[in-house]
Amino acid sequence: MISMFIKVINPNTTWSMTATIEACARAVTAPGTRLEAVSPRMGPASIESHYDEALAVPGVLAEILRGERDGADGFVIACFGDPGLDAAREIATGPVVGIAEAAMHTASFLGRGFSVVTTLGRTTGRARDLAERYGLRDACRGVHACEIPVLALETDPDARKIVTEACFDALGSDGSDAVVLGCAGMADLCAQISADIGAPVIDGVAAATLTVQSLVTLGLTTGKRGEFAAPPVKPYSGLLAPFGRAEGTRG
Amino acid sequence: MISMFIKVINPNTTWSMTATIEACARAVTAPGTRLEAVSPRMGPASIESHYDEALAVPGVLAEILRGERDGADGFVIACFGDPGLDAAREIATGPVVGIAEAAMHTASFLGRGFSVVTTLGRTTGRARDLAERYGLRDACRGVHACEIPVLALETDPDARKIVTEACFDALGSDGSDAVVLGCAGMADLCAQISADIGAPVIDGVAAATLTVQSLVTLGLTTGKRGEFAAPPVKPYSGLLAPFGRAEGTRG
Amino acid sequence: MISMFIKVINPNTTWSMTATIEACARAVTAPGTRLEAVSPRMGPASIESHYDEALAVPGVLAEILRGERDGADGFVIACFGDPGLDAAREIATGPVVGIAEAAMHTASFLGRGFSVVTTLGRTTGRARDLAERYGLRDACRGVHACEIPVLALETDPDARKIVTEACFDALGSDGSDAVVLGCAGMADLCAQISADIGAPVIDGVAAATLTVQSLVTLGLTTGKRGEFAAPPVKPYSGLLAPFGRAEGTRG
Amino acid sequence: MISMFIKVINPNTTWSMTATIEACARAVTAPGTRLEAVSPRMGPASIESHYDEALAVPGVLAEILRGERDGADGFVIACFGDPGLDAAREIATGPVVGIAEAAMHTASFLGRGFSVVTTLGRTTGRARDLAERYGLRDACRGVHACEIPVLALETDPDARKIVTEACFDALGSDGSDAVVLGCAGMADLCAQISADIGAPVIDGVAAATLTVQSLVTLGLTTGKRGEFAAPPVKPYSGLLAPFGRAEGTRG
Amino acid sequence: MISMFIKVINPNTTWSMTATIEACARAVTAPGTRLEAVSPRMGPASIESHYDEALAVPGVLAEILRGERDGADGFVIACFGDPGLDAAREIATGPVVGIAEAAMHTASFLGRGFSVVTTLGRTTGRARDLAERYGLRDACRGVHACEIPVLALETDPDARKIVTEACFDALGSDGSDAVVLGCAGMADLCAQISADIGAPVIDGVAAATLTVQSLVTLGLTTGKRGEFAAPPVKPYSGLLAPFGRAEGTRG
Amino acid sequence: MISMFIKVINPNTTWSMTATIEACARAVTAPGTRLEAVSPRMGPASIESHYDEALAVPGVLAEILRGERDGADGFVIACFGDPGLDAAREIATGPVVGIAEAAMHTASFLGRGFSVVTTLGRTTGRARDLAERYGLRDACRGVHACEIPVLALETDPDARKIVTEACFDALGSDGSDAVVLGCAGMADLCAQISADIGAPVIDGVAAATLTVQSLVTLGLTTGKRGEFAAPPVKPYSGLLAPFGRAEGTRG
Repeated sequence: MISMFIKVINPNTTWSMTATIEACARAVTAPGTRLEAVSPRMGPASIESHYDEALAVPGVLAEILRGERDGADGFVIACFGDPGLDAAREIATGPVVGIAEAAMHTASFLGRGFSVVTTLGRTTGRARDLAERYGLRDACRGVHACEIPVLALETDPDARKIVTEACFDALGSDGSDAVVLGCAGMADLCAQISADIGAPVIDGVAAATLTVQSLVTLGLTTGKRGEFAAPPVKPYSGLLAPFGRAEGTRG
Repeated sequence: MISMFIKVINPNTTWSMTATIEACARAVTAPGTRLEAVSPRMGPASIESHYDEALAVPGVLAEILRGERDGADGFVIACFGDPGLDAAREIATGPVVGIAEAAMHTASFLGRGFSVVTTLGRTTGRARDLAERYGLRDACRGVHACEIPVLALETDPDARKIVTEACFDALGSDGSDAVVLGCAGMADLCAQISADIGAPVIDGVAAATLTVQSLVTLGLTTGKRGEFAAPPVKPYSGLLAPFGRAEGTRG
Repeated sequence: MISMFIKVINPNTTWSMTATIEACARAVTAPGTRLEAVSPRMGPASIESHYDEALAVPGVLAEILRGERDGADGFVIACFGDPGLDAAREIATGPVVGIAEAAMHTASFLGRGFSVVTTLGRTTGRARDLAERYGLRDACRGVHACEIPVLALETDPDARKIVTEACFDALGSDGSDAVVLGCAGMADLCAQISADIGAPVIDGVAAATLTVQSLVTLGLTTGKRGEFAAPPVKPYSGLLAPFGRAEGTRG
Repeated sequence: MISMFIKVINPNTTWSMTATIEACARAVTAPGTRLEAVSPRMGPASIESHYDEALAVPGVLAEILRGERDGADGFVIACFGDPGLDAAREIATGPVVGIAEAAMHTASFLGRGFSVVTTLGRTTGRARDLAERYGLRDACRGVHACEIPVLALETDPDARKIVTEACFDALGSDGSDAVVLGCAGMADLCAQISADIGAPVIDGVAAATLTVQSLVTLGLTTGKRGEFAAPPVKPYSGLLAPFGRAEGTRG
Repeated sequence: MISMFIKVINPNTTWSMTATIEACARAVTAPGTRLEAVSPRMGPASIESHYDEALAVPGVLAEILRGERDGADGFVIACFGDPGLDAAREIATGPVVGIAEAAMHTASFLGRGFSVVTTLGRTTGRARDLAERYGLRDACRGVHACEIPVLALETDPDARKIVTEACFDALGSDGSDAVVLGCAGMADLCAQISADIGAPVIDGVAAATLTVQSLVTLGLTTGKRGEFAAPPVKPYSGLLAPFGRAEGTRG
Repeated sequence: MISMFIKVINPNTTWSMTATIEACARAVTAPGTRLEAVSPRMGPASIESHYDEALAVPGVLAEILRGERDGADGFVIACFGDPGLDAAREIATGPVVGIAEAAMHTASFLGRGFSVVTTLGRTTGRARDLAERYGLRDACRGVHACEIPVLALETDPDARKIVTEACFDALGSDGSDAVVLGCAGMADLCAQISADIGAPVIDGVAAATLTVQSLVTLGLTTGKRGEFAAPPVKPYSGLLAPFGRAEGTRG
């Protein structure tokens, strides 16, 4: 049995969500897999806009670099926008998988089409962008918003009911075979929703964690011959210099 | 740790290849996973044409039905054409994964593009069809034939060298980040080729086995609400009646 | 006037449907064209699932081989899933045309978009797959199911009314210029439906028969330089050896 | 046997080419089909630019209107740019088919991909546009120019040799199953080139003529419910008023 | 400040609409830009069909040639079908821009998706064709017809209200970020509609005029190395010989 | 004449490049347009990887916010990866345009296809992503790297010669009508290269500046009804809180 260390990064700074994510990831890993979930030291409390996502990325990348130092064999980026994924692949030695890509690819093994159910309507464009990027634009038959803010998933007593109904409705209106949950904050709802609606429901956190575990088992990591080679070293101005040389230290 | 039984079906009737496939699949499964690889009782010795593939499918489906009877939790179809995959999903309770789809989706986590290296040039059209079907047409940057017949992979002393060179050349000409091996008969070459060319190389047999193991772990299987529900029961004439009623036995 | 022999294969084993198909095909051929319609000796009574289609294909291919022996100049595969089409092109000398491809290409000459009206909802995915494969995904504006089983088309007294209404509704909801009938069992309804709804309605059986007649007239057949060359001869285990060598007879 | 009148319009004003087109079309029609080929009374001597094509269209449409008056059952537009096709479908009662669309759709029945071999390089963009429009962009694997002007096809003693070599080269470089001749002026070369290169070669003139003959036989014509209904009647200024009211004659 | 002359061609022969177009174009140009709007001497009173468009093109091209003679630095084709655009680019020295392409590209800077609101339903196919041609098929989320004839935009007292409502409804049903007006005859409604619906509304006439002004400022014009080089000179029969040699004048 | 203030943001921190960018932008603006070019206070010295781009974005967004405060009417993001564009559109009142999108859309007015010539090969994937995102994937016929680092464009005496040759070669190999320069650092080379190769060459800095100027003139800005509305206000941890509330200041 292979022994490995997977680091799961929740790109927002809400540690209660990070704890839920860690529990959902741990529930599916093999005995030999050690798992740690963290939030970055800087960034937004939740990610609900392109702006939030942009500001979350430097913190995610700093955690990747810390994970490299700590010997992580692979990484999960646990926000459905997969923020910083390409950059993370450049700086990580092992595989890096986003929960949106893992969930969508996983859904593609379960039938012809899937629906995504997510939080706010303003994030649906990004979800469709990702489906397009991952080649799953045709498989992704619809992206549906519950209009529940990310952090309200933890506090709104009606959240589970609203998300469950949205999943059920999406199955029917899209003619889908499965539903993908479009937010890491929904990870703990997955089993119950699936039971309630009688159809496969995919939580990207668990899916991505197993994807990373499989890639490490297979000895596979990001190809490093071209676009995803380590980035050129260079000076960075201001406070953002985790990877390059600090400015003024060239000698 | 989850306990499960995965049945791997080699769609051709060459049992020496089936043994290799079983070894490659077993090398990556978790301790709790029982694995069996079989060939159908009828079908072609190798699959190198649409005609071969068409004649292999009924035997594959018969093995799915036997697996259902024997309590298999999931199935791998171990031929790069993924023969009978849609039909198998209709008749299996658990997930069914083809090695082409598993390999291609796995490759998509390793960078922007991959190359496929396969046996005969006449099968490259089918490989491209599958990439298109799985949404990975853009990610699949080239399909390259070695012009080695499937069964010669086991006997031709130059086979590994030729396949390795084709993989290396494909990386360069396609600008790819990874290589997918386009035949189950290449499964045992994977690690060595990867070491030789210095880039990720994906064997679909191992990738599909871990994909099924992950799906079973996640409690996921084919959506059964629509296209992939169990097929309507009906009479079948002639010798092909594994699932429906035998003709003349209606009452 | 060119003299030719076209063999029409109804992939299911319901000979009453075969007789209807033959009549519809004969109604449109030129005086010099001899036409025969058959069902395979083995296979499902109707094709309503991927499983049915997979089990129908070997019988279709056996009929192609018999037609080759009997001097057929071209073949029609008369089931809207076009089962076995690629394999048939490998083993036939003359052209082979499926009724879905013929109907869809024919519809493309009549305007910008067409609707497909078919039997069961579970087959609509396959129809969309074919539209995509034939390049007519954008032209195919909708695939609509009547939820009438294939064989009920012959027996249900309301079948024609239901299909006609579905065609009329599809024209409006899809904004289509024409309707394609999505089942060979609807061939004899074509003229009446067209008259009732006041729009072009395409029966694939007649369309495919004329397509084959035209290809033979033009001296055209499947290109045989690559993917569709005759398949490599090899041993086949079990009962499925129409084309290769019977196992144990190599000497 | 159905009796019909097909009018073939050569959009350029070179009547020697019109005669060749008529001979090639007549060679394939059924005994009951009457066929006439004409050139418009105004327009360019050959069509080798978007400008030429734009100026050819009014003459083509005038011939459609004359054909309507003369009882034509269907029309062929015999230039590989299919000039005026959409407009012709609005004003014709029977079907209208362009030679590019007929040739490309015909090629799609012969394998997975085809190459187009045409006259001047500057026209290849238009050929690719049409392949895209007809859904055959993937099937069309290459468009190759011989750099022979259209009218030189009739006079250049090397024309056949150059076109034949281009066809042979295209098959290899594109991995195609068939070749489409990209100019009506190549119609008479088709059989010889096919024999020389050992692969299917498609002349759009013959293909389009049989397509129209088949559509008329099937009782099919352009859908007239929407985009292709007869155009609204209105005043036309200047000399181009074949269909609308002449200006100043409204009372 | 750059000094230039932009010629705006309204492809229909309704000069009252030409005057409106000129006013809308002038309202946005820089001080150094001289602008003239004209209608061709021949052609339809409005463009509402493929037939109208085909008959409008020769007149548009004649105006391009007159503009070349008069020293125009660039051209706008002010009909939402962009009639004759490719041919105009062959014969013009400076840039030529259609109002549909300018409006759609402009809309793409304002968000993820736009809706088109146009006159008659029969023209929506052409609008979708253009969106596809310009690469903006995904960005173009819907094309909606008001069923107001082109010339009624000037006379129908309810026109503005109907168009405004259609724009508002399209925003909601398409989830669009902006609206493109699909007819040059709507140019003067743009500002008011935008104010009424509270979203960006794009008039192609103003957008195309500024696009041409920018291209001239940047020193950019149509690439002349291939498809858009000046067309080969040749004889034209009949009355359409603005560019080639008049027949019978070869010496 | 409209008076406006356009802020051009060079996302890297190399102010000598910012000065060049400002000069190129100023050269094309109208007399009433005030223009300022800046670099962010933090970020990488050049952008040559996904990692660099991710770390550049927070500084770009801070400059957008400063520009909002200073009354900027519109913004240009002057790096060919268009970093932070979606987020910038959320937080800016006026239009925001990236130089890659402006250059590519501009190229689409000049013919059928364009080539991109850029710095390092590892950035070509991002350029292709953007072409896809902007709908110009087919128009973008090739992306070619000179393998000159971004900052070496200012210092390498052979840079202009190498870039010019790459542009010339790209025109031929891609059959393109125009060339897009794939780095803001090439802005000052544009006119000379165009003269040298005899084809249109597009500098995105000038193109984007005129695009913003046109949008402001037309009164157009980002649609604010959905995805690009101002982001929800929320706490940001650490040092990245330009837009939301600083953590601990909620009362």
